[in-house]
Amino acid sequence: MSLLVVGTVAFDEIETPLGKTGKILGGAATYVGLAASLLIDDIRMSAVVGDDFPQQYLDLFAERKINIQGIKIVPDQKSFFWSGKYHANMNQRDTITTDLNVLADFNPVLPELYRDSKYLMLGNLTPAIQKSVINQMRTRPKLICMDTMNFWMDTAWNDLLDVVSMVDVLAVNEEEARQLSGHYSLVHAARKILTMGPDYVIVKRGEHGALLFCGDEKFYAPAMPLDNVIDPTGAGDSFAGGFMGFLTKMDDTSFECMKNALIYGAALASFSVEKFGTERLLEISAEDINKRLDEFVKLVSFSL
Amino acid sequence: MSLLVVGTVAFDEIETPLGKTGKILGGAATYVGLAASLLIDDIRMSAVVGDDFPQQYLDLFAERKINIQGIKIVPDQKSFFWSGKYHANMNQRDTITTDLNVLADFNPVLPELYRDSKYLMLGNLTPAIQKSVINQMRTRPKLICMDTMNFWMDTAWNDLLDVVSMVDVLAVNEEEARQLSGHYSLVHAARKILTMGPDYVIVKRGEHGALLFCGDEKFYAPAMPLDNVIDPTGAGDSFAGGFMGFLTKMDDTSFECMKNALIYGAALASFSVEKFGTERLLEISAEDINKRLDEFVKLVSFSL
Repeated sequence: MSLLVVGTVAFDEIETPLGKTGKILGGAATYVGLAASLLIDDIRMSAVVGDDFPQQYLDLFAERKINIQGIKIVPDQKSFFWSGKYHANMNQRDTITTDLNVLADFNPVLPELYRDSKYLMLGNLTPAIQKSVINQMRTRPKLICMDTMNFWMDTAWNDLLDVVSMVDVLAVNEEEARQLSGHYSLVHAARKILTMGPDYVIVKRGEHGALLFCGDEKFYAPAMPLDNVIDPTGAGDSFAGGFMGFLTKMDDTSFECMKNALIYGAALASFSVEKFGTERLLEISAEDINKRLDEFVKLVSFSL
Repeated sequence: MSLLVVGTVAFDEIETPLGKTGKILGGAATYVGLAASLLIDDIRMSAVVGDDFPQQYLDLFAERKINIQGIKIVPDQKSFFWSGKYHANMNQRDTITTDLNVLADFNPVLPELYRDSKYLMLGNLTPAIQKSVINQMRTRPKLICMDTMNFWMDTAWNDLLDVVSMVDVLAVNEEEARQLSGHYSLVHAARKILTMGPDYVIVKRGEHGALLFCGDEKFYAPAMPLDNVIDPTGAGDSFAGGFMGFLTKMDDTSFECMKNALIYGAALASFSVEKFGTERLLEISAEDINKRLDEFVKLVSFSL
């Protein structure tokens, strides 16, 4: 099955208490795509970069069997750039620079091939763009998952509600779930969001794992307690990549399958944070993933 | 099997965004004892109160089959009193009043019957008192679990290390695990603490559940996402009560049994926060507990 990923492909510069990178490969679609590429081989990526974006990164995507036909290269412009610094606890970070550059005018036009993708992951973008992508699909994907952020709740509320009503899965963090629903309790928040369109709500809780809500059902995927967290950048997107990659692979959108997909997401996220940027995602093997999945099974197994 | 609980029995006055109590029954030993009494019926309690402590509370313990022979009533003195106010997120609280009163001179002398208890829960107290209790036991209990807090790390470091070296299970929160070990990563922190005496370390994470470490094994018990959290007071102690109650009931200190005990702890804690003070612990039935345990099984069950 095919997975279409729409989102940012960018440069990041990251500082954590454990070190500092130069300008490295980043962006939500990058992490989603690379994580998913460890599970499936029909991934289509829609993004925009400037002509400063190195050919080697595009080659890297291609090597990973990611279709890059939909990555638009805009001449004489620069790629999106983000730099940030993490606090000692790695849970909070300060943004130092956000240069939208080429992203300011991003208006994706999907290549013909992309328009029949069966699974669609909408990274955090202007709600209007997310909607435009859905409307370009020839047939409605079997499953659409979207990410968003507080910024759009403050600045594009109606557009956001509009696109939320069109998707199957909303994946947000605790704060976003609370702001979107107006409820503090995550159970109440999820219940409210489930009336706004999606059949599934995922609440991402960083080092505390993720919760999945569907009707009256709930499921908790833990985060793996790790020896060392080097760089949390991209953990949520790697999670989304593992999650959507697994659903696409299984072509099954049942609650039961989605629970497993959450564990895959948690596993990919757990690798992502073990090194700076995308480094760890690029070096792990299927065997590493299976080993990590076994650790997740052990982590929460008990028999009352 | 028998469980000895040593800790505070006190008055609390609690304010949360959802309401305010008057002076109500509180204290760590109270929550541990009441939670454990839902699982076992041979509980011995060692504590100290003033003569302002109502007979009805002592009767309540007795009705729950809790032996109160070791609760010392000091004439002309007042019981320990704590009052606090929770922030909007219920994760943080400000202490308004701490009147040690009778607790200032607490020096428990265990009744003869108590000295052969098979399981021992040492609530958060001066390390010297915790040690004195262990030394009063006629035979070494099969399992000793202790709680502590940052305050003792700041003021009684050597005494604390001494008692930590004598116990089997240390149950602390994240901050305490970090301060005690000098490591930020919980995996590293637990590994260090396991070299200090205990065979098991439990890291309590409030609304994010609890982690159990033993050798190279780890286990994660989630917290139940609840519709409403009314009052977090006593959640950690109810957790300890469920945990120790289950171990005492099964008389099994294996890692496998301890995993189940953690789930029992999480279940009792999840009830405790649903109403103010001990109210909810006093109204639930065995059937309620079994139903909640089933919810925990569902919450983390998946089959890859």
